Order: sequence, then structure tokens, then C-alpha cells
Amino acid sequence: MPIAFITVVPLGTGSTSLSDAVAGVQRALRATGIKHELTPMGTVLEGGLDQIFEAIRAMHEAGFDAGSGRVSTSITIDDRRDKPTSAAHKVDVVKKKVGD
Amino acid sequence: MPIAFITVVPLGTGSTSLSDAVAGVQRALRATGIKHELTPMGTVLEGGLDQIFEAIRAMHEAGFDAGSGRVSTSITIDDRRDKPTSAAHKVDVVKKKVGD
Amino acid sequence: MPIAFITVVPLGTGSTSLSDAVAGVQRALRATGIKHELTPMGTVLEGGLDQIFEAIRAMHEAGFDAGSGRVSTSITIDDRRDKPTSAAHKVDVVKKKVGD
Amino acid sequence: MPIAFITVVPLGTGSTSLSDAVAGVQRALRATGIKHELTPMGTVLEGGLDQIFEAIRAMHEAGFDAGSGRVSTSITIDDRRDKPTSAAHKVDVVKKKVGD
Repeated sequence: MPIAFITVVPLGTGSTSLSDAVAGVQRALRATGIKHELTPMGTVLEGGLDQIFEAIRAMHEAGFDAGSGRVSTSITIDDRRDKPTSAAHKVDVVKKKVGD
Repeated sequence: MPIAFITVVPLGTGSTSLSDAVAGVQRALRATGIKHELTPMGTVLEGGLDQIFEAIRAMHEAGFDAGSGRVSTSITIDDRRDKPTSAAHKVDVVKKKVGD
Repeated sequence: MPIAFITVVPLGTGSTSLSDAVAGVQRALRATGIKHELTPMGTVLEGGLDQIFEAIRAMHEAGFDAGSGRVSTSITIDDRRDKPTSAAHKVDVVKKKVGD
Repeated sequence: MPIAFITVVPLGTGSTSLSDAVAGVQRALRATGIKHELTPMGTVLEGGLDQIFEAIRAMHEAGFDAGSGRVSTSITIDDRRDKPTSAAHKVDVVKKKVGD
């Protein structure tokens, strides 16, 4: 199952604070039902590709709800098909190797 | 119309050269018919959101055709809805302001 | 204090697994002493700009230690200067607004 | 020589237009003397790592000149050390393979 990372940024809102907009994006994300985790720089998504793209569309559209006329959305998709993996597993394996 | 930037990177291919894979991704992109331009660090796409997401899916899948079991795809979507714009216009306006 | 997000990917390693390389990058990061947190899709850094750039350089160089001849490093820097903030605060504010 | 791609976005400016800010960032970039090319979604840089990091710092700082209190800067560095390459060469090789 692919893992994705997404950041939605409304532009020209007149405020350097983005938390209201990010909260709206998180609400739209929840409604999709996809597994996700908020980090300080974006949201980690875990699901099938169709589900991930559906979530990206919902989050991108929600970026306009704060009243901005321009939204910049950045996404990275890490899609490993030769072996099962997960977001939690990726972090665990590295932490074990580093010696945490 | 939104403008997007996409980079598809196959991982674990055993070669530091990616040009064969990138060429395959470009062929898949052409088949979608979306307006695009290859740059040294990724491809600029111009089209409706549906068309852009269709192109992203096609390019991401083509990243696996080179035989890799893992593909990392990065996307940025710049979606301005308050005013018509275009990829060429964005560059022209800045160049004019800089004095080119 | 700016917050950054960084992902270091060695290319052409012949393996779809990157955990050894990521572990090496994390060890190099630790040696810099900067505050950081590993996520499933990259590492969050918190520090002054000089410290962040020093950490980026160290992580990027460590990406070559796994024996790869090509490294792709992606960075986003969120630099807010009108108000003190932190990685933990950014997440807390949004979670409170969403109702967690 | 590494090749980089950088996008500097001032947040909370109150305008969805970024061309004034981008023009200021381009002027700061020119002053560094590094080889560069503006694209519709960011700027391609070519130079040694020290020169690239110097340019990134100058561009990031220039992002604040438009009066914004928050700047988001995204960078990708493609650093190939096993073989000489260039931004123009990367595009040429792919275009030849695609049949342009």
C-alpha cells in the first residue's frame, strides 16, 4: 500500500497564520475515511492509490474554503509494490537500525 | 487552469541513470494529450484538475515499467481560480518585472 | 525559529529498501545536535537557519555513504518571523481547532 | 555538478499574485552569479553545492523583502557524482529517447 505526504497551502489570505485553513483541510480529509496522521509539515496518508487520490482532491478543494483564490498543494507518493510496508513500519525499521 | 509540476523517480533500479525510465514516463504522458513541457527537474503540466490527475496516474504507473518495484512521485499543483493564468504567462510576467 | 522537512533518497542502489541509507542519514543528523523527529516520509528539523542548512548538508552527504553515486534530497523550509512558533505548537493548534 | 530546483513562496501577503515577490527573488539570485533558469513552477540552479546553498539562502531571504512575515521555500537537489551531467544534457537525453 502506497504512503503519501501532502501539504495544502492557501495563498494571498492576508494572514501568516494557516491553522484555520489547515483545520478545514483536516476535516475534509477525515470525511474521506483514509488512514492519516498530521505532522508539523504536512499529513501522512496510507491507503490504495484510488483512495489517496480521492483524499488529495478533497484536501486541495478544502484549501479554497478559507476564502483564498489560490491554493498550492504539494504531494509525494512512495509506492512500494515488491513488499508489504506501512508508515509505522518504515519508521520502526530505521529507528531499530539507528539504535533507538 | 491549474499548473502542475511532477517528478517520477523509480527506486532500486541498480543504475544511477534514470533517462530510460523518464523517457517511458514521457511517452505515457504524451498518450494522455495534456499540454506539458519537460524541464531538467520535472515536467510542467497544464490542464483541468481531472486531466492533471489522470496524467499523474499515468506517469506514476509508467514509472514501474522500467522494472522497478518502488516509485517515488512528487507533485506540486498551483491552482489559481481568481484570475486566468498560464505557465508561459507566469514566466513572462516575472521576466518583464526583472527587466529581461 | 524555522521548521524544515527533509527527505534524502539515494538512487541506483539496486535495492528497493532504503532503511540502511536512511539510518546512516539519521546518524549523521544526530551528530549535528539539531532538534529533529523522524516521520514515515522524511525528517522534521527545528533550529536556526544556519543550523538547518548545516544539518541538510550533513544529511545529503550521508546519503552517498551507502555507496550510491546519485542522491536526491528534497527540503521544505517554513520560516515564520512575525511570531514565535514550533513544530509541536503547529500540530497542537490544528488538532484543537479540528476538535481532537 | 549538482542541479537544484527551488520555489520561494511568501505567505499571508494579501494578494494571490506572487510575481512581484518572485521578481525580487530572481534579482537576488542574479546577484549570486550562479547559472539558473526560471520555469513556470520554480527555478533550476546549476553549480557546486556551496554555490547552490548560497543561492538558496539569498533567494529565501529575498522572499521576505515583499513584506511577508512568513516564507515557504521548497528545494530539490539532484546530485550525481558518478558521471558528469548538466541540466541541458538531462533534457536532451530524454528527448532523444522519446524521439523528439
